[in-house]
Amino acid sequence: MHSPSDWRSRAQAAVDAKTKPLGALGQIEALAVQLAELQQTLTISVDPVRTVVFAADHGVSLAGVSAYPRSVTAEMLRNFAANGAAVNAFARAIGSSVEIVDVGVDAEPEVLALTGIVRASVGRGCGAIHAEPAMSEAQLAQAMAAGAAAVDRARASGCRLMCLGEMGIGNTTSAAALGAALCGAAAGQLVGPGTGLNATRIEHKRAIVEQALARHRRDFTLDEGPQAARQALASLGGFEIAALAGAMLAAGRLGVAVLVDGFIVSAAALAAVRIDPAIAPALFYAHRSAEPGHQLLLQALAARPLLDLQLRLGEGTGALLAVPLLRAACAMLNDMASFDSAGVSHAL
Amino acid sequence: MHSPSDWRSRAQAAVDAKTKPLGALGQIEALAVQLAELQQTLTISVDPVRTVVFAADHGVSLAGVSAYPRSVTAEMLRNFAANGAAVNAFARAIGSSVEIVDVGVDAEPEVLALTGIVRASVGRGCGAIHAEPAMSEAQLAQAMAAGAAAVDRARASGCRLMCLGEMGIGNTTSAAALGAALCGAAAGQLVGPGTGLNATRIEHKRAIVEQALARHRRDFTLDEGPQAARQALASLGGFEIAALAGAMLAAGRLGVAVLVDGFIVSAAALAAVRIDPAIAPALFYAHRSAEPGHQLLLQALAARPLLDLQLRLGEGTGALLAVPLLRAACAMLNDMASFDSAGVSHAL
Repeated sequence: MHSPSDWRSRAQAAVDAKTKPLGALGQIEALAVQLAELQQTLTISVDPVRTVVFAADHGVSLAGVSAYPRSVTAEMLRNFAANGAAVNAFARAIGSSVEIVDVGVDAEPEVLALTGIVRASVGRGCGAIHAEPAMSEAQLAQAMAAGAAAVDRARASGCRLMCLGEMGIGNTTSAAALGAALCGAAAGQLVGPGTGLNATRIEHKRAIVEQALARHRRDFTLDEGPQAARQALASLGGFEIAALAGAMLAAGRLGVAVLVDGFIVSAAALAAVRIDPAIAPALFYAHRSAEPGHQLLLQALAARPLLDLQLRLGEGTGALLAVPLLRAACAMLNDMASFDSAGVSHAL
Repeated sequence: MHSPSDWRSRAQAAVDAKTKPLGALGQIEALAVQLAELQQTLTISVDPVRTVVFAADHGVSLAGVSAYPRSVTAEMLRNFAANGAAVNAFARAIGSSVEIVDVGVDAEPEVLALTGIVRASVGRGCGAIHAEPAMSEAQLAQAMAAGAAAVDRARASGCRLMCLGEMGIGNTTSAAALGAALCGAAAGQLVGPGTGLNATRIEHKRAIVEQALARHRRDFTLDEGPQAARQALASLGGFEIAALAGAMLAAGRLGVAVLVDGFIVSAAALAAVRIDPAIAPALFYAHRSAEPGHQLLLQALAARPLLDLQLRLGEGTGALLAVPLLRAACAMLNDMASFDSAGVSHAL
């Protein structure tokens, strides 16, 4: 039986023996080593891939923090179910199954009775964080369990990699508040245009986040440990953000690789690694988002994102775009010849 | 009949109508618009993909400019033919055919009589650029024609996208010299570690490039036009670099999209666009290489590379990694619903 660090050094040695200059495949090599350590094998794989989009509404979306009306969350669920959204198009192009999980969209149940939507609603939108907690402890546990259940379904279908995404009008506001709380940062460092606010409306959003931070400060400044992270999630998060954190905790504990999408999923990731730092090796960071506050979250996660394409859509789209890079890492480690096996001369 | 700029504005309008915040897919949107303009359609495609690796030796490889012996060029051709190299592994993972073209490898003909190697040799290695021209005008024409012939073969098999790569011990030296000539830059701005030189050997490589530039200065400082670029290619390039330029010129004129790989292919691209600036819209830049001089070439090409993964391998590997991003751009334009078709509310 090898320890994780044994697998890391064995994988690095195997990568170094491949027919290429030492280190010449840069971050692809680092991906291969991280996957080998996680999967405890030198025959790594990320297929099949499952993309899960957790969707929910936010009390704060009624406070003028988004460029889109609250109704768009439910409308986009119909679009997902009809295969018309960006996540559907990218998943087809890249080869991933897609599961949409309603963890709290504000719509009549019959509106969401759509083929392919998993019903796991915790409530019709979380509380308005500038005035009340986002959710109760019981709702937090329920949302996190919904995330873990999605991982169980994916595992049951053989999935080796999960792309995690979200949909929820207003959720860059919740993610900014959560991120600011977890980083000990000011609202202004995390608040950005989201789906497309102008400067005046960004300032309004910043004031809302500041109000939320002031309202709940005593809930998350206990310490930097697991309990503070759970409290911050309950006070400032959202049902889909809690489900994302629950999914990452479950995946990490089971050794299932996760591609973290953008700003919102990264805020959930930061909460998850504060709750259980041991899951960190399962997390792969797909991209640096155009949302300015993402950089701070990535730093707090010590993350080295794979892509930087000025994306700011969510839905797991950025995570999907990074899947082929993980597949290439697998191909390198599994399929490439070594200098010795190919009879290629070593460096002088 | 629409003009290219009509297609550009029609594609932009179609992208803007998709169910996503305006501009939220960043560079993926720009790729879709560029492809629509190039292919003159709103139903864009990059499949099937063909990867072509042009291979040749360099006189200068006998002057101590590489971490590997000259024999590695031929050895790697055997590795390509046996499907053991990084380009083979990545092409399988990403779904691309691979063609290897010998345009001047220094090996006995029987050594290179390998399945899947196209024989189009211009000579057994080009001249040592610090002492003589890399090739004659006739050899330049022959190498460029070999590049164009690869495009013709790809087109005949229906290819919509070409990934261009190279193999040739010593060719970062030639590419640095060519790039310095075309940019009017000093040798030191373009010379880097290549396959892995230490500081002392980089300094030796820089001195060789400076010598080459001094030796041939009058050949390429005529002007910045097509004739100077051809002269610089003949004086300072290599057979595979000339073939790459010929392939890009042919592809650009036929409207076939090209993914430009790293440092060496970018030097060839700069020569090609100096020879015919009208081909520029066909060129997509896959990545920013770890080779430090690449940044200057990308700037001269006004290129916005898609990836930045610290790659420095060549063989077209970086180009292959960017293919899924172009496929995602196609999926977005071809498959996503619009706000109106999906019944999703517009921004407030």
